[in-house]
Amino acid sequence: MSLETVFNEIPFVESLGIEVTEAADGHAEGTLPLREEHTTNPHGGVAHGGVTYSLADTVGGAAVVSLTGDVAPTVDMRIDYLAPATADLTATADVVRNGGSVAVANVEIHDADDHHVATARGVYKTGGQNGESPWEADVERDDVDPDDDQ
Amino acid sequence: MSLETVFNEIPFVESLGIEVTEAADGHAEGTLPLREEHTTNPHGGVAHGGVTYSLADTVGGAAVVSLTGDVAPTVDMRIDYLAPATADLTATADVVRNGGSVAVANVEIHDADDHHVATARGVYKTGGQNGESPWEADVERDDVDPDDDQ
Amino acid sequence: MSLETVFNEIPFVESLGIEVTEAADGHAEGTLPLREEHTTNPHGGVAHGGVTYSLADTVGGAAVVSLTGDVAPTVDMRIDYLAPATADLTATADVVRNGGSVAVANVEIHDADDHHVATARGVYKTGGQNGESPWEADVERDDVDPDDDQ
Amino acid sequence: MSLETVFNEIPFVESLGIEVTEAADGHAEGTLPLREEHTTNPHGGVAHGGVTYSLADTVGGAAVVSLTGDVAPTVDMRIDYLAPATADLTATADVVRNGGSVAVANVEIHDADDHHVATARGVYKTGGQNGESPWEADVERDDVDPDDDQ
Repeated sequence: MSLETVFNEIPFVESLGIEVTEAADGHAEGTLPLREEHTTNPHGGVAHGGVTYSLADTVGGAAVVSLTGDVAPTVDMRIDYLAPATADLTATADVVRNGGSVAVANVEIHDADDHHVATARGVYKTGGQNGESPWEADVERDDVDPDDDQ
Repeated sequence: MSLETVFNEIPFVESLGIEVTEAADGHAEGTLPLREEHTTNPHGGVAHGGVTYSLADTVGGAAVVSLTGDVAPTVDMRIDYLAPATADLTATADVVRNGGSVAVANVEIHDADDHHVATARGVYKTGGQNGESPWEADVERDDVDPDDDQ
Repeated sequence: MSLETVFNEIPFVESLGIEVTEAADGHAEGTLPLREEHTTNPHGGVAHGGVTYSLADTVGGAAVVSLTGDVAPTVDMRIDYLAPATADLTATADVVRNGGSVAVANVEIHDADDHHVATARGVYKTGGQNGESPWEADVERDDVDPDDDQ
Repeated sequence: MSLETVFNEIPFVESLGIEVTEAADGHAEGTLPLREEHTTNPHGGVAHGGVTYSLADTVGGAAVVSLTGDVAPTVDMRIDYLAPATADLTATADVVRNGGSVAVANVEIHDADDHHVATARGVYKTGGQNGESPWEADVERDDVDPDDDQ
């Protein structure tokens, strides 16, 4: 099964209509056709920020996994919105740092109306999996004070 | 129509199952019941990062609009994931800066399994609307070089 | 007095040794010769993250002001470190969004050892000055709860 | 030598006048007396954003190292400015995630004029050192395309 298919079978990816079209050598691309249910206004045609973000996070992760070959949970992502998304979205992601603990990917999002909709940067965890789920490992190992909710 | 209802009728908010339960005086709260279609794995029960982010962006925006009374497009948001989201999500948002041009909101996300899932901070645009849609105003006024895709 | 000179006479800019060498049309460049006092280790030659950040924030601001002609306080900045800074630094900044309320600039930092040291993105406030200092306006207008330290 | 002393002997920390006053159990505090050379205006008394950031990055790092006992290079940090810094600064940092690969710390900055000056969040690298300098390890292992400066 190709890496693109692995990503495209993620339930939320499939549910939103995201398609990862390319993922190799630290570069990934993806699309998201804009649907009525993605918008911020019953009468308008502007995508909700969460739609654009979901595409960015997914394609950024695909770029990282294309280098590491293992799951890479998102540590953090920042997205800056540059213009309203009024048509189908495309994203391109490139890894700019790839280390033993973390990788960093830049993602650019455009729409079919030629808007540069958003630019995002994500940090993904690449280390410490040892064959286990990184999230389970996190749950066991992380020492977060349950009272510290800040 | 209450502010909570305005947010809950946003198509993407309704589609994901987000409910804004409180929005007043710069504070907002919301919930998102975790569904199979929100997950990252066909067999697992961990929410995709885009699901958590969408809740954070929505509730953060509701906190800002509860102070300004006008639409407040997201300028940027950063989310840090602290633990996997394995159950229904709740978010609380508080405005920490409210100025004539921008407002800043902090958002904390927990799940029903008592995980502190994520912490996010968003900047929202509060100025320059003049009765028009801020996005339309943006489209007309912003001087983004279409060739600068960085 | 040129815009470059205005920036270079800022006390902290001068104190660190930053020189803004170009600022026009939404693009700016600057340099920072690495000194012993900038490092993280008495015996090493790696710049402290605050040194790299200070250059990024300054050159990003210069790029914005080259378009707006007015002071533009930083709203937020995120910096991602990609490699250690072991030699003199150079920065280039480009404005990717320029609106009535906020502008966004990307900044890339390299060192003379050919490391891509860091990449940063800043949001700057462009509206609401009305001929007054934006910071004074902020102090008067912003409605930050002094008890909310989150 | 105490952890506080280790940080206070960092050349840039000493040069700026930062003092880490506490660092234990994932919590750290520090101060930075405001000097003329830290300001943004020859006649004004507002700290440059880089000064505030440098304090935040330093104290955040001290909080992380107080848990891990090893160097922890900053992966990324975002700072949001909430009010002008017009007097001596104090910072408090708390670790909110501590894992085998990365740790996350929140930092709050206030000044002696009772302004909540800024809030910052940083990701620090905690894994993969194996007794070597993490930066040297990075240099050897990271696979950053030198032509990809985005």
